[in-house]
Amino acid sequence: MPDSTADASFPVTERNRVRRSPKRGSYDKEAAYAVLDAAPLCHVGYVIDGAPYVTPTIHWRVGNRIYWHGSSASRFLRASEDRPVCLTVSLMDGYVLARSAFNHSVNYRSVMAFGTAHLIEDADEAADALRHFTDGLFPGRWDSLRPMTAQELKATSVLWMEIEDAAVKVRAAPPGDGDESDVPVWAGVIPMQTTLGAAQPAPELPANCELPAPLADLIASGRLR
Amino acid sequence: MPDSTADASFPVTERNRVRRSPKRGSYDKEAAYAVLDAAPLCHVGYVIDGAPYVTPTIHWRVGNRIYWHGSSASRFLRASEDRPVCLTVSLMDGYVLARSAFNHSVNYRSVMAFGTAHLIEDADEAADALRHFTDGLFPGRWDSLRPMTAQELKATSVLWMEIEDAAVKVRAAPPGDGDESDVPVWAGVIPMQTTLGAAQPAPELPANCELPAPLADLIASGRLR
Ligand SMILES: Cc1cc2nc3c(=O)[nH]c(=O)nc-3n(C[C@H](O)[C@H](O)[C@H](O)COP(=O)(O)OP(=O)(O)OC[C@H]3O[C@@H](n4cnc5c(N)ncnc54)[C@H](O)[C@@H]3O)c2cc1C
Ligand SMILES: Cc1cc2nc3c(=O)[nH]c(=O)nc-3n(C[C@H](O)[C@H](O)[C@H](O)COP(=O)(O)OP(=O)(O)OC[C@H]3O[C@@H](n4cnc5c(N)ncnc54)[C@H](O)[C@@H]3O)c2cc1C
Ligand code: HEM
Ligand code: HEM
Repeated sequence: MPDSTADASFPVTERNRVRRSPKRGSYDKEAAYAVLDAAPLCHVGYVIDGAPYVTPTIHWRVGNRIYWHGSSASRFLRASEDRPVCLTVSLMDGYVLARSAFNHSVNYRSVMAFGTAHLIEDADEAADALRHFTDGLFPGRWDSLRPMTAQELKATSVLWMEIEDAAVKVRAAPPGDGDESDVPVWAGVIPMQTTLGAAQPAPELPANCELPAPLADLIASGRLR
Repeated sequence: MPDSTADASFPVTERNRVRRSPKRGSYDKEAAYAVLDAAPLCHVGYVIDGAPYVTPTIHWRVGNRIYWHGSSASRFLRASEDRPVCLTVSLMDGYVLARSAFNHSVNYRSVMAFGTAHLIEDADEAADALRHFTDGLFPGRWDSLRPMTAQELKATSVLWMEIEDAAVKVRAAPPGDGDESDVPVWAGVIPMQTTLGAAQPAPELPANCELPAPLADLIASGRLR
């Protein structure tokens, strides 16, 4: 595969070419990165004995790489190591109600990213990745925590994949059957959104322990990460 | 496989046995059904030429069967027909912030369901399923719509799978490291929730066309379906 790191778009292959509703699809890297960065959760597909498995997990992105983590003993992580994975991120933005059943749809943003999963073997590199993950979600948190132990690091695997090819698909529009607006039925969009709510202190939290500003900011931002 | 339709739990197999954090896992059918019914969106894993693919799609459930739909020409639907699939539903309920990085987590409800996808071949059966799907999301809507045409039905595939085995995993708790509450850092849960918002009428909608009561009720319910 040619080194396409500098390209603005992912290469179009048999794997990622958008065949259905191609007008909704794109191979633009920044557009795909924006969707990957907006959602904390992805679904990773991998194969064991020829059969498909889909595991939900938190991901993070650095450049053209996506990372995820879990137990060193995890079946999911062990089965995907050095194997092809499809990592999918979806944000559902609303129901689209049309005049015909056929034209009902959903507004959404999604990415299907293809690559090969690799384990970070080097302990320092894994520790750096976990720090980056934690501070990426919760700015400045790592240094305020009880330090990570060697045993904890050993129990943790961090995986990553270079995005070899990906597609992003977006629908963000009213129902597509405006030409049938004589049908006497309500049509439009019922928006759906995911938000963070008021922080719930742990039961044992000392009374003088306040919510750090970056967490208050995150909750107020409307973003999820 | 023995007929276990009447059992309260799914059989435990090599495929669905929860090895990591087994205390969070269950094979209880009603618990799994509750998660499947709460979320409109699933991620379906399937295999093409030995490689994994994960496609986001809307699903619905009738008894022990899960259904989904799309274009008759869809690669996703054609590649999964009569083949094993893993259908995963995830609801992320919040960030769990602990005193150590290692004990950070997420509150969630999720199901991984395993089965074999089948196409509904009979046109009347497919039409019934699509009506059930539409009215299941939006009560009473089917009869208010411009009727489905034969051509639309022909362009649509409905797939289903019997859930052969599944597991449900739930985390719903404060951080697990209350014993380290002497660490002077904020700990607790930042809840995350997905809600429907105020309905947005289509641009061409006649002024006298009001939002039907079942849609207003759905939006007010706090549920997503
Ligand atoms: C929230 C949500 C709900 C959806 N509900 C439905 C539904 O109920 N029924 C339905 O038919 N479809 C639904 N879709 C769209 C679905 O994900 C597929 O895009 C569609 O089914 C076409 O699949 P295909 O394999 O035939 O597409 P193809 O165009 O053949 O897929 C080829 C390639 O296109 C790219 N691609 C395809 N789909 C996506 C995607 N969603 N995101 C990023 N890249 C993609 C991938 O690279 C894929 O390998 C939904 C999507 C989202 C995000
Ligand atoms: C919103 C969300 C975020 C998550 N984030 C992370 C993360 O960042 N890191 C991480 O390690 N894990 C995360 N998880 C948990 C993850 O989905 C797996 O449960 C975990 O990684 C263990 O995977 P495993 O293959 O090693 O488990 P195993 O126990 O070996 O899996 C065996 C079987 O257990 C069942 N099972 C496993 N996981 C699930 C599940 N989530 N839901 C239903 N059944 C299941 C399935 O039947 C599976 O085939 C998250 C889950 C959710 C829902
Ligand atoms: C009311 C509930 C329904 C919802 C929420 C819904 C949602 C969706 C969504 C999100 C897609 C994907 C579109 C895309 O690729 O961007 C889709 C595709 C499709 N739906 Fe539906 N749908 C509904 C009902 C129906 C019905 C009743 C039919 C048939 C009469 C139907 C037929 C189709 C077909 C054929 C496609 C494939 C479009 C294509 O790839 O060209 N849908 N649906
Ligand atoms: C701050 C961000 C973090 C979040 C949101 C997070 C989230 C999660 C989640 C949701 C799980 C799945 C637990 C389950 O199966 O129910 C998990 C597992 C795990 N995490 Fe993290 N984590 C974070 C940071 C870390 C760090 C920094 C480490 C290592 C020091 C770590 C180590 C682990 C390990 C080892 C597991 C596997 C647990 C098991 O299966 O026994 N995590 N994490």
